[in-house]
Amino acid sequence: MSATLVELAERFGCELRGDAELPISNVGTLLSASSSAISFLANPAYRSQLSTTNAGAVILEERYAQDCPVPVLISSNPYAVYARAAQFLHPRPVPEPGIDSSASVAADAILPKSVRICAQAVVGAGTRIGESVVIGEGSVVGDNVSIGEGTQLAPRVVLIDGVDIGKRCIMHSGVIVGSDGFGFARDQESWVKVPQLGSVVIGDDVEIGANSTIDCGTIEDTIIGDGVKLDNQVQIAHNVRVGAHTIMSALTGISGSTIIGKRCMFGGAVVVVGHLTICDDAVFTFHSTILQSITEPGTYSGALSADKANRWRRNAARFKNLDEAVRDQRSVRVEESGD
Amino acid sequence: MSATLVELAERFGCELRGDAELPISNVGTLLSASSSAISFLANPAYRSQLSTTNAGAVILEERYAQDCPVPVLISSNPYAVYARAAQFLHPRPVPEPGIDSSASVAADAILPKSVRICAQAVVGAGTRIGESVVIGEGSVVGDNVSIGEGTQLAPRVVLIDGVDIGKRCIMHSGVIVGSDGFGFARDQESWVKVPQLGSVVIGDDVEIGANSTIDCGTIEDTIIGDGVKLDNQVQIAHNVRVGAHTIMSALTGISGSTIIGKRCMFGGAVVVVGHLTICDDAVFTFHSTILQSITEPGTYSGALSADKANRWRRNAARFKNLDEAVRDQRSVRVEESGD
Amino acid sequence: MSATLVELAERFGCELRGDAELPISNVGTLLSASSSAISFLANPAYRSQLSTTNAGAVILEERYAQDCPVPVLISSNPYAVYARAAQFLHPRPVPEPGIDSSASVAADAILPKSVRICAQAVVGAGTRIGESVVIGEGSVVGDNVSIGEGTQLAPRVVLIDGVDIGKRCIMHSGVIVGSDGFGFARDQESWVKVPQLGSVVIGDDVEIGANSTIDCGTIEDTIIGDGVKLDNQVQIAHNVRVGAHTIMSALTGISGSTIIGKRCMFGGAVVVVGHLTICDDAVFTFHSTILQSITEPGTYSGALSADKANRWRRNAARFKNLDEAVRDQRSVRVEESGD
Repeated sequence: MSATLVELAERFGCELRGDAELPISNVGTLLSASSSAISFLANPAYRSQLSTTNAGAVILEERYAQDCPVPVLISSNPYAVYARAAQFLHPRPVPEPGIDSSASVAADAILPKSVRICAQAVVGAGTRIGESVVIGEGSVVGDNVSIGEGTQLAPRVVLIDGVDIGKRCIMHSGVIVGSDGFGFARDQESWVKVPQLGSVVIGDDVEIGANSTIDCGTIEDTIIGDGVKLDNQVQIAHNVRVGAHTIMSALTGISGSTIIGKRCMFGGAVVVVGHLTICDDAVFTFHSTILQSITEPGTYSGALSADKANRWRRNAARFKNLDEAVRDQRSVRVEESGD
Repeated sequence: MSATLVELAERFGCELRGDAELPISNVGTLLSASSSAISFLANPAYRSQLSTTNAGAVILEERYAQDCPVPVLISSNPYAVYARAAQFLHPRPVPEPGIDSSASVAADAILPKSVRICAQAVVGAGTRIGESVVIGEGSVVGDNVSIGEGTQLAPRVVLIDGVDIGKRCIMHSGVIVGSDGFGFARDQESWVKVPQLGSVVIGDDVEIGANSTIDCGTIEDTIIGDGVKLDNQVQIAHNVRVGAHTIMSALTGISGSTIIGKRCMFGGAVVVVGHLTICDDAVFTFHSTILQSITEPGTYSGALSADKANRWRRNAARFKNLDEAVRDQRSVRVEESGD
Repeated sequence: MSATLVELAERFGCELRGDAELPISNVGTLLSASSSAISFLANPAYRSQLSTTNAGAVILEERYAQDCPVPVLISSNPYAVYARAAQFLHPRPVPEPGIDSSASVAADAILPKSVRICAQAVVGAGTRIGESVVIGEGSVVGDNVSIGEGTQLAPRVVLIDGVDIGKRCIMHSGVIVGSDGFGFARDQESWVKVPQLGSVVIGDDVEIGANSTIDCGTIEDTIIGDGVKLDNQVQIAHNVRVGAHTIMSALTGISGSTIIGKRCMFGGAVVVVGHLTICDDAVFTFHSTILQSITEPGTYSGALSADKANRWRRNAARFKNLDEAVRDQRSVRVEESGD
């Protein structure tokens, strides 16, 4: 795909300064973009790269326009404009509609003609698939699943019987939606399986990363709101509800029955214990452990930075006796004040 | 499935108080159950929901019976009775026996007529499958694998050549059993692969969650005992042995050659370093790091709760100098006592 | 495979002491090896097992030779010699070349006759596969992928369109290479997808463990150097570069755009935040959190060992007020020195 700079400016609502007819056909970083590419400045840390960029044009905020030696598109949100421009210039390839001869599709599955079922995929009985859906190679869609229009499953996704997926979702390879929640009742020394009878309901415009897992609910459904974005190897346990537009980076895990608000941000490897409530707009930095409900929006942290091993070892040894050390200190003060 | 209340009472050994002929056809929570459903009270925190429940009946301990406005089944372990009642009322669907025409089954694999091999599955040479086993869509069972009767593989499970799976196990989607352990010998700056020659032996009544991985042993076998329950994205490294009825919640990882006792409980995201021994009946709370062998039953913790970011930052900065701070404090006391 | 002890000594450059013609056909631990097996002593902790071993021979360092009651092969690196001997005695089975009739292979894929494409596998258009490559059962290789000679994919690996894999690599089951990086631009309360236009380039002799995920780059490529070894459930985010011969144990996660040096060692469940630079020869112990760039080779730690729950709870409570406690202590000293 290719466009003139003025076409991009109009399409994405930016002010244009410079050659309106400049042809743009791809994107690049400030450091590596060629003269046919559009780049962006979103993080001020990279401001110094502006002066030497070979990009054809740069998307940036008004305040940086004067530092840029090449034509600019001015926006208050350059990264979002960049994202849309990149989508426009590099459209996601859409496979030809049709059902590969090696796929296994149940006779009563409902598939519009615009759907693509790739090689070795399986579609179960009673499943309803929306317009322009893509089921990737080797994916398994169970019985009585519902998939909204425009949703794309990468190769080797599994949707267990009965799950309900919204429109325009993207599921990356290895995603499992609707596997049994982890429920067992102890009886003497062994465990009795608690049947997991709920399902999973996923809203529109949800993206789920490679090898992430979302369990079905125990009695009611596990729910993922509209616009939620999950990275790779995320784990969502049974009965969890994730509010709209919440985003979770890789290796994040949410334990059972925890309710998460809207627009929350989980910064990677964040783990949340079960049965909590997390309010809207909570932000968790990398590798935090959430053991209590969060009732106030804001940023929360919970990771200790690694240190040189011998230094860490000494500090960790002190931590093992921290309570005693603080008591000692207090008792000294009490003694002193008692003098 | 449907039953009268008295039939459930007799089947599960409970005392019945109320309408013996009440028909029960499903289950529900105290808050949402309808009059055809049976509910339960296992966690005293939900006791207040008893008075307004619309459930047809409730399974509970004797001491709560008087608070319940509807018929009750009395048990000293209401959650286990609920689990069994739910299994009875909502039996796990069993696919019709047979081999899907799209499956690839080795000519010399041993399969009773009661087995179901689903679409796109693969069964290797010399493999022996027990009665009523289900091999889910797209699952790959290697050569010389043994699977005990009644075991069910969900879609897209992988059992590598030679692994041995017990009876009545459930393997959820994405599970990998028998992949190579992680063994390399350093030689100058590069690594020489140490062949992983052992296998994996899994006992009876084991359940393994979605996308969990269990490596084969280096020389001897990795062993998972009877009745073990593993949640999603659990990692079991080579040569590990897990004792009977131990349970591990999601994201738990056990490093190589660690030996784990019976009836242990891992509360989610617990990580255990290699070559340890964990005794029977050890309990680990959420996101603990286990760096030393555990010789005494009991509960162990290891996670710091996240805090507001600015508060956390100040405390974490102090931790970085904790050893010095405690030394300082002690030296003050020594000076004082030296006066 | 079988060999005399002298053949092994010559092949692997060891000094032989004992019966040169002793036939060796397999390997074993000092405790369990039979008289036809060769064992090794690499970890001095197992030295006491030498005196009672039933092994046919033992590979060890010169200084332990006198303690060994059976023939020995002497090496300064017994573990590497053991690894090579085990590879020699137990060669990895190589499937017969050929394309299984159930596989789906694009007409224009380039496959030498020595390649094995297993049951239910998929190979996409324009893909080039080297000599003696094995594509495991149910694996999906996308379009325009390149795979170097001798590389083996276990069952159910996914290589997304365009990725480039070197020679003699091993990808275990469930590995996903080339899934989209996690990039979104915030716009009001929702997120705009940033197209992930780069790919993944993997060097020679790389091994990747079960269910690990490696994302493609945003604009440029994610790069894994020669000889890198990744264990199970490792996550490599977009734009990461991993230097040659670096090794990462299970559950390790590297966030986006982090650059990792050569010969680093990640001890399992290590998590690294994004946009860092880690120098060559850095070693991280189990479950460390890396929040800052590392510029000096050496060993770094970051995990607190779990403790008895009540003791941990008291220490963790003190940590929550650590900054205040240290301030208190300091203020006492200032008051004292002010007296």
